[in-house]
Amino acid sequence: MFLPDTVRITGRSGGCLTEVIWFMPGNSFGQMFRITTAGESHGPGNVVIVDGVPPGLPLSEQDLIPDLQRRRPGQSHLVTQRREADEPEILSGVFEGRTTGTSIAILIRNTDQRSRDYSEIQDKYRPGHADFTFDARYGFRDYRGGGRSSARETTARVAAGAIARRLIAAEFGGAVVGYVIQIGSVRARIEAPERITADQVESLPDGSPNLVRCPDPAAAAEMQQVIEQVRRETDSIGGVAEIVATGVPAGLGDPVFDKLKADFGKALFSLPAVLGVEYGVGFGCADRRGSENNDLFTTSDQGQICTETNRHGGMLGGISSGQPIVLRAAVKPTSSLAREQKTVTRGGEPTTISTRGRHDPCLLPRFVPMAEAMVCIVLADHWLRWKALKTS
Amino acid sequence: MFLPDTVRITGRSGGCLTEVIWFMPGNSFGQMFRITTAGESHGPGNVVIVDGVPPGLPLSEQDLIPDLQRRRPGQSHLVTQRREADEPEILSGVFEGRTTGTSIAILIRNTDQRSRDYSEIQDKYRPGHADFTFDARYGFRDYRGGGRSSARETTARVAAGAIARRLIAAEFGGAVVGYVIQIGSVRARIEAPERITADQVESLPDGSPNLVRCPDPAAAAEMQQVIEQVRRETDSIGGVAEIVATGVPAGLGDPVFDKLKADFGKALFSLPAVLGVEYGVGFGCADRRGSENNDLFTTSDQGQICTETNRHGGMLGGISSGQPIVLRAAVKPTSSLAREQKTVTRGGEPTTISTRGRHDPCLLPRFVPMAEAMVCIVLADHWLRWKALKTS
Amino acid sequence: MFLPDTVRITGRSGGCLTEVIWFMPGNSFGQMFRITTAGESHGPGNVVIVDGVPPGLPLSEQDLIPDLQRRRPGQSHLVTQRREADEPEILSGVFEGRTTGTSIAILIRNTDQRSRDYSEIQDKYRPGHADFTFDARYGFRDYRGGGRSSARETTARVAAGAIARRLIAAEFGGAVVGYVIQIGSVRARIEAPERITADQVESLPDGSPNLVRCPDPAAAAEMQQVIEQVRRETDSIGGVAEIVATGVPAGLGDPVFDKLKADFGKALFSLPAVLGVEYGVGFGCADRRGSENNDLFTTSDQGQICTETNRHGGMLGGISSGQPIVLRAAVKPTSSLAREQKTVTRGGEPTTISTRGRHDPCLLPRFVPMAEAMVCIVLADHWLRWKALKTS
Amino acid sequence: MFLPDTVRITGRSGGCLTEVIWFMPGNSFGQMFRITTAGESHGPGNVVIVDGVPPGLPLSEQDLIPDLQRRRPGQSHLVTQRREADEPEILSGVFEGRTTGTSIAILIRNTDQRSRDYSEIQDKYRPGHADFTFDARYGFRDYRGGGRSSARETTARVAAGAIARRLIAAEFGGAVVGYVIQIGSVRARIEAPERITADQVESLPDGSPNLVRCPDPAAAAEMQQVIEQVRRETDSIGGVAEIVATGVPAGLGDPVFDKLKADFGKALFSLPAVLGVEYGVGFGCADRRGSENNDLFTTSDQGQICTETNRHGGMLGGISSGQPIVLRAAVKPTSSLAREQKTVTRGGEPTTISTRGRHDPCLLPRFVPMAEAMVCIVLADHWLRWKALKTS
Repeated sequence: MFLPDTVRITGRSGGCLTEVIWFMPGNSFGQMFRITTAGESHGPGNVVIVDGVPPGLPLSEQDLIPDLQRRRPGQSHLVTQRREADEPEILSGVFEGRTTGTSIAILIRNTDQRSRDYSEIQDKYRPGHADFTFDARYGFRDYRGGGRSSARETTARVAAGAIARRLIAAEFGGAVVGYVIQIGSVRARIEAPERITADQVESLPDGSPNLVRCPDPAAAAEMQQVIEQVRRETDSIGGVAEIVATGVPAGLGDPVFDKLKADFGKALFSLPAVLGVEYGVGFGCADRRGSENNDLFTTSDQGQICTETNRHGGMLGGISSGQPIVLRAAVKPTSSLAREQKTVTRGGEPTTISTRGRHDPCLLPRFVPMAEAMVCIVLADHWLRWKALKTS
Repeated sequence: MFLPDTVRITGRSGGCLTEVIWFMPGNSFGQMFRITTAGESHGPGNVVIVDGVPPGLPLSEQDLIPDLQRRRPGQSHLVTQRREADEPEILSGVFEGRTTGTSIAILIRNTDQRSRDYSEIQDKYRPGHADFTFDARYGFRDYRGGGRSSARETTARVAAGAIARRLIAAEFGGAVVGYVIQIGSVRARIEAPERITADQVESLPDGSPNLVRCPDPAAAAEMQQVIEQVRRETDSIGGVAEIVATGVPAGLGDPVFDKLKADFGKALFSLPAVLGVEYGVGFGCADRRGSENNDLFTTSDQGQICTETNRHGGMLGGISSGQPIVLRAAVKPTSSLAREQKTVTRGGEPTTISTRGRHDPCLLPRFVPMAEAMVCIVLADHWLRWKALKTS
Repeated sequence: MFLPDTVRITGRSGGCLTEVIWFMPGNSFGQMFRITTAGESHGPGNVVIVDGVPPGLPLSEQDLIPDLQRRRPGQSHLVTQRREADEPEILSGVFEGRTTGTSIAILIRNTDQRSRDYSEIQDKYRPGHADFTFDARYGFRDYRGGGRSSARETTARVAAGAIARRLIAAEFGGAVVGYVIQIGSVRARIEAPERITADQVESLPDGSPNLVRCPDPAAAAEMQQVIEQVRRETDSIGGVAEIVATGVPAGLGDPVFDKLKADFGKALFSLPAVLGVEYGVGFGCADRRGSENNDLFTTSDQGQICTETNRHGGMLGGISSGQPIVLRAAVKPTSSLAREQKTVTRGGEPTTISTRGRHDPCLLPRFVPMAEAMVCIVLADHWLRWKALKTS
Repeated sequence: MFLPDTVRITGRSGGCLTEVIWFMPGNSFGQMFRITTAGESHGPGNVVIVDGVPPGLPLSEQDLIPDLQRRRPGQSHLVTQRREADEPEILSGVFEGRTTGTSIAILIRNTDQRSRDYSEIQDKYRPGHADFTFDARYGFRDYRGGGRSSARETTARVAAGAIARRLIAAEFGGAVVGYVIQIGSVRARIEAPERITADQVESLPDGSPNLVRCPDPAAAAEMQQVIEQVRRETDSIGGVAEIVATGVPAGLGDPVFDKLKADFGKALFSLPAVLGVEYGVGFGCADRRGSENNDLFTTSDQGQICTETNRHGGMLGGISSGQPIVLRAAVKPTSSLAREQKTVTRGGEPTTISTRGRHDPCLLPRFVPMAEAMVCIVLADHWLRWKALKTS
């Protein structure tokens, strides 16, 4: 009944339904530390409401800016040249420089919404994008870009993640550092994930910016070359990021559905372009024997129970073990290409498309702060859930 | 205040907290099709309440038994020899052979709770198990086995999954088939995942049972040998399972946090022993270029928009594309070993442990029905969420 | 598609839809202390899964029985004579007499499911019952009684409430006492709600059982006569119950949607037959002036801030004030009458119906433990939510 | 740890806890049609994210303004004279004049945040307000006004309610009209609630504005006098509002916890100052007999099953019956009084307080649009839940 006349979608694979449209809610994440977001790539801006932040945490817009800057387009020649200030405005929940315990709303306005001709992407499905599936789902879409499926919605996540990061630091000294370990066939050599610092991720040994966010300088240099090359060839390249959480106490996570690993899995898969997630030895466990894979318990010099090794990536039975949490996410090559690709129109007619300008030739450098944000949010949520129920 | 006197845990890695205990709820999964479970390995039984099943669906205990049998211990010499009848009793929500639309409770009593000496696992932490993290979380635990973290809780999931399976079949002709593709270094050769049948998974070409649930008969034979060998050597082995959903219409999944891939990710990571999840090309995307990775749109012989290839594993932007959904999960080798392993006691004293009898030397054969169940549940949930909001 | 052939419902008042059927989930209550229930009046039994109970709380079936006995049919000649043992079985979550922190499942089997002729209520709509609305909602119903809308589902709530009652007592010394203050035109005189004891509710001054659960003995005697009279006249009578929670610390409840009063409102309105809920002066506030209605702050003898009066019923801004919480619920007269009433068949044909035997002529005596249970559950839930977020 | 040094609260009635602070999330309402809000009375503004609006619904800021204007302060001399433009900005979810199916964010900036001396309310507890309970809950508060507990947060609800109102009108022809039926001892005479029109609520027969929103003109005149009088006497007065929903199909609501009446109860009790909620005969049921109270089924002229009378207020077993839904809420007299009242300081010292200017002497006129909004939201939510699960 609501459907504009011109829309007729048959988004059905195996079956008989035609001309239906649909949608559903799903813009919240977390239980105790809960974020709800709204916003599109070409609308007025992105909003996040963060519910569950304890009262008294020092907070201002300045605290949100560093992570937003790391996520921002246009930060280097290796990423999209869209120009966005990404300046956050805190609309509620903070009084005299401290959180009040009530919900915190943050608005990040879009500034670079170029007026241009969208007729091409309006009528054609970009390969690898959500254009077709959006039409299949909603019957029509905001065709001026990715709309709600644009990576621009992650500004809201990164702003919320910056609050979560401060929360876990203040509450239990937790820290989350992410970095790139693979781009194309170039793999970084990382001896001890838990010892990589934010500084190594952001800066090279000579003090210059680490544009690819790989803490192995030699690999970083190679990765930069790979990205520059694929961009010259109007192509793109995939990669893998690793995210490490340290200082996490043993005992976070629920034994059944809300295992900590399950919530990390959902968090990372909810980011655009992620095709795989693993932790600890990950897929490498497939050809290991139990005797090679089990981490044996021992006692630390400080008298605490710990494991000799960390093949379990900091989680046993879905509950944190006190060891560093080590996660990895595989990110596909950018789907938007400046070269011509075959596709079809909304009506199913064969055509070609080439997407103009301003794309990341590789998503990984900007993916790092997004992934860190989601990991911080999961930890803040499970920390609060854990506090709810401990015996006083 | 509740804490029994004898319990003193310091489950903290990086920090200063001591002697706290905690816990939290997390025994529900799904939004519209929602399951809530309870039960331990050595208690009276496992219960699931399934909320959100439409009225009128034909259902009886008989419909639940096939999948429960596939999950059941003792089904072959390759799996644990614990003896459980796993007979479900439907306690509500079904009247005259059809669902009423109200919540369905199913009880599966435990029958093989051997009375034996648990003093060893009561006081020692089994490597790779959740014993230590349970103590860290709750302060004490039901030490007669895995308790709530035992794979026995998956009986409840498999029973609920059997209902979800019938729901998606009746509503949109959806089908879910899982199988083993790797055990140790043996990899199956699967040409077209979407054409593997449940029959191929359960039976070998000669009609004998396919004990490892690998539809490549040659690989299946090798895998069986590997399992028999590690068992002889009091060891265990990991592997990878693939789960394929066909007949899924385009349009399921939400564009942001509740992406279909995110909910599959959570569902599979919530199963015991899963260390990695991927879909489509998965981690293989890391060294691909966009021009190699994008699936180009075309039009099928029936005039429907589809893609030429399915590297995207049936989901674009987290929304189903109408192509087969192809997921993979990496499962670690069983942690329980009949050989001696080093560990510590609850008090932190060095000791050794060897777990007696009745363990799966490889979890994969019984993992298949568990993973299928979770995939069915996610599809049922997203289908109902999708129906809620389509325009009539 | 699922719909049995014989069902054709047009459950639509203002509109054009015909022949649709529908349903939805809604069998869970609470956030941190969360109960999920299943079961019908004439099925095998009722089940509740209680999620969120901290580990270490002493618990056995014996702890659940007293409240179940107070709710039980057949407890006196004033209530329905259906015979149910209402014996609970704890299926999980308790080990060696203490809760483990995992989900607790409780099963209460139905024992008195008389085999009889249901053809009358199968085809006719009982006035005041949910028969018609169930058919409108689900397309068909379990016609052997109220099914899911029967007050028998409250066994599950009362069992869960008994756990909540123990939790709030152990955690903060909270106590909940309910009683009847009005039946028909007979009103009890209650000087100080917070001083009414459970003993006064259950026993008369002479030690005999207080069958109507009104702590004003004179009113109780009158009420009993009213009930006996309406029963003789094949009629029924309504009333009002008051529920008082003491020992509740200031600070429970959230300032916006999850105000404590809002969750009490939902909890009590979710019980069968409740047509009104109020707290403090309630509807009496309508003709009061602010200067008469405000409770002025002062300091107690123990130096604590409190109010001189308690017209606010223990909640200000939806947050507990530390004063006793005083709630009231209006309960309608039983709809089932042994006398003939006009109605229609499912096909809309005029007919008459008289419901045979075994009904409560007045719901109030058995309503008291149900209402107490829901109030305990809300307090347990908000207590845990509150603990989640306090600063350590 | 977060707590500012100067805050020391002992918000405990019956007990021993001291100097703890706490909080929790609770800023979302609804399941399928879900709103999440943020904002304080003296911060930058109020925000609501509406999740679950189907795609294709025509929507612009203009559609939100009428209800916001009815809620707005300063609309007449009978209400608070705070000056707020209450102009909404839609930040997302609308494209080319139609909803896209994604989350809709609306921002309403505060404009009248007078700079003045708050030292009085900073240090003293206003009787009847949430000042004390906020301190008890959070340890400190935004003392520049009600903060998060201010009625200003209802701007967000009213904006969301305007969307819900359009949704239920478009989807099933539903309409919601509220009005005042009692102020002080003046009671309106309403013959047929379901026939009161929005026009009667907003305008008097002579075309002048109906400042008190009572559709009985004689009572309206008297009510106006009462309000003017209490204002002159620096006092305030309570009242009762009635809200009627028509066109609601039979079948909305779930039989157990999420009864339609339960969600209406929560919705209305979540509004500031509501002390009582009832539907149908409400508390009047207490002295009725079943034979007087039951509504008998019959068949309408159009051949539809309906009831002869509507004492059940449109809901049976918590499920809509197709009859008009009739709800009532009791609203207390404004707590803020310009006269001197006794109270204590945060430290517990006796003092007096008189709140200056700009208060509503009676909340009822502005309560009407707030209550309508919440009723619209509950109906939109249950409609979508109902659609999710009907058989196609």
